[in-house]
Amino acid sequence: MAADPTTGGGEAESFFRAAPPLRDQDRVAGDLADFVARHSGNGGGGRLAGVVCVTSGGTTVPLEQRCVRYIDNFSSGQRGAASTEYFLKAGYAVIFIYRRGSKQPYCRFLPEDSFLDLFELGEESDIQVPESHAAVVKTAIRNYRKAIDEGLLLKLPFTTIFEYLQLLQMVGTAMNCLGRQGMFYLAAAVSDFYVPWESMAKHKIESASGPLNMQLNQVPKMLFILRKQWAPSAFCVSFKLETDPDILLQKAEAALRKYGMNVVVANELANYKDVVVMVTSNGRTTVRRPSKEDDVEEQLIDLLVEMHSEHIMQLNQDVHKLT
Amino acid sequence: MAADPTTGGGEAESFFRAAPPLRDQDRVAGDLADFVARHSGNGGGGRLAGVVCVTSGGTTVPLEQRCVRYIDNFSSGQRGAASTEYFLKAGYAVIFIYRRGSKQPYCRFLPEDSFLDLFELGEESDIQVPESHAAVVKTAIRNYRKAIDEGLLLKLPFTTIFEYLQLLQMVGTAMNCLGRQGMFYLAAAVSDFYVPWESMAKHKIESASGPLNMQLNQVPKMLFILRKQWAPSAFCVSFKLETDPDILLQKAEAALRKYGMNVVVANELANYKDVVVMVTSNGRTTVRRPSKEDDVEEQLIDLLVEMHSEHIMQLNQDVHKLT
Repeated sequence: MAADPTTGGGEAESFFRAAPPLRDQDRVAGDLADFVARHSGNGGGGRLAGVVCVTSGGTTVPLEQRCVRYIDNFSSGQRGAASTEYFLKAGYAVIFIYRRGSKQPYCRFLPEDSFLDLFELGEESDIQVPESHAAVVKTAIRNYRKAIDEGLLLKLPFTTIFEYLQLLQMVGTAMNCLGRQGMFYLAAAVSDFYVPWESMAKHKIESASGPLNMQLNQVPKMLFILRKQWAPSAFCVSFKLETDPDILLQKAEAALRKYGMNVVVANELANYKDVVVMVTSNGRTTVRRPSKEDDVEEQLIDLLVEMHSEHIMQLNQDVHKLT
Repeated sequence: MAADPTTGGGEAESFFRAAPPLRDQDRVAGDLADFVARHSGNGGGGRLAGVVCVTSGGTTVPLEQRCVRYIDNFSSGQRGAASTEYFLKAGYAVIFIYRRGSKQPYCRFLPEDSFLDLFELGEESDIQVPESHAAVVKTAIRNYRKAIDEGLLLKLPFTTIFEYLQLLQMVGTAMNCLGRQGMFYLAAAVSDFYVPWESMAKHKIESASGPLNMQLNQVPKMLFILRKQWAPSAFCVSFKLETDPDILLQKAEAALRKYGMNVVVANELANYKDVVVMVTSNGRTTVRRPSKEDDVEEQLIDLLVEMHSEHIMQLNQDVHKLT
């Protein structure tokens, strides 16, 4: 990756150079290459609607190299898990980059802390689910099995900001060959600040000596680089979360222009499950969930899939003009 | 709680006064009172070996009141979950104060991120577990059901340092009536630093304006107050985790004296599953797990249960002398 002042490439380059290398890098690269190869060239009129990379959950920023303490970004992973289900339903193959321990597709309705609460042993030591939960659990197992068995879901876990950005780079460059068929749906809550690895305390920070002062650097804005270098033809959807509604839409519009996104989805912490605003260069579209039993992601993904199809069609029209 | 400079009571008082009130405080207080009442007076020669409060997982420190970012302490909750199983096996009733999303008793061997990987649907839509996992899953369900059905396990979740310390205070004062029958096994990774609620940013901290500077205050040392005020007769076991082995045992011994613990369990991040050192006023005892298939907690809990029995016996001897 060449250093380029307009894309922040210099900062990014030094971020990646200093980051601890990803564990399992070779295995991940292999799985990724297989997955993309299996699903490429299938989009135009084919069975597959496209390939989407969904990112989900919050990244951590270690404060010590042998990590005891870290800064974390709040995100249950609810949005990413629900969206993955709707993308699969719409016929996409999904690369799910998720925070370890965050919500998983088809598991959203199951109890979090002790799934053992769901099960009982029958008289012959067979595993039983109480009638009240049986339908939900069986549907979850059926849909999950289908996605895995048909090879439509690739799951890649991360914990730290270093792991997340390395995975995003690998997936971004691997998906470049898909051109307009590729989509990025960047729902992960990514740290804005980090402690550079080389300036990090090696051991646990001592607590005996009064208040703690910390200085954190800004994380380079990788959306630039995703857009300009890794996968420039892909359809890119990013998210803007704020707690203060007065600045939310302004900030979403600024991000749309600054990073050249196709869509920025604006949401507030207080009601992110109920309503989102899709911000595009054509204006704003508010999406609300019809009832507490529905997911706001259902309609959101419907609209995005439609926009992505148009994005793909544009290419086909361009190609048609040329031939 | 009176302000007392020797116990840090003043700082603790202002910490609790400023903390956001615990949700469900009344329900938790009711459950706790029931649980303790049900298991009190059962210890001396009775069925029950005692009541232990196990704390587990890491606390978070919010950096914003509407929390998007927080500082977290690494802890999977493995130690607390495993220890809870062995305490139950030894005949204790367990109050399990745990970080939401951390490891749970009897679930330690099950896959973390997608338990759906464990299940299949049979031909008649019955839920099946592949032969390879069937024994583990069935044992987990059986043991968990037994603990719950016999009313021997009370689970209380927390996320923030504010929630954790309020729960510990409630459990500490509720267990006071158990006297020497009570045990505290404080395996949670508790933050040393926090941002006082009233000085916290209300909204998400802006990322546009360069590096971030933070100042964090020290969390008051509640072990003092647990020991002196909340439950002075209980048997108290705390943990010391360090990444630097050179300072670990010194720090464990300092904590033993400073907080008047009965035992401080010293462990290193690099090998905490393999070996721990029990530090008491009588010296050090190293506990190693015999093999990768065993838990170091099995022998650790055996030794602690023995020490706790002696602690209870001392009271009986004292009472005997008086009569």
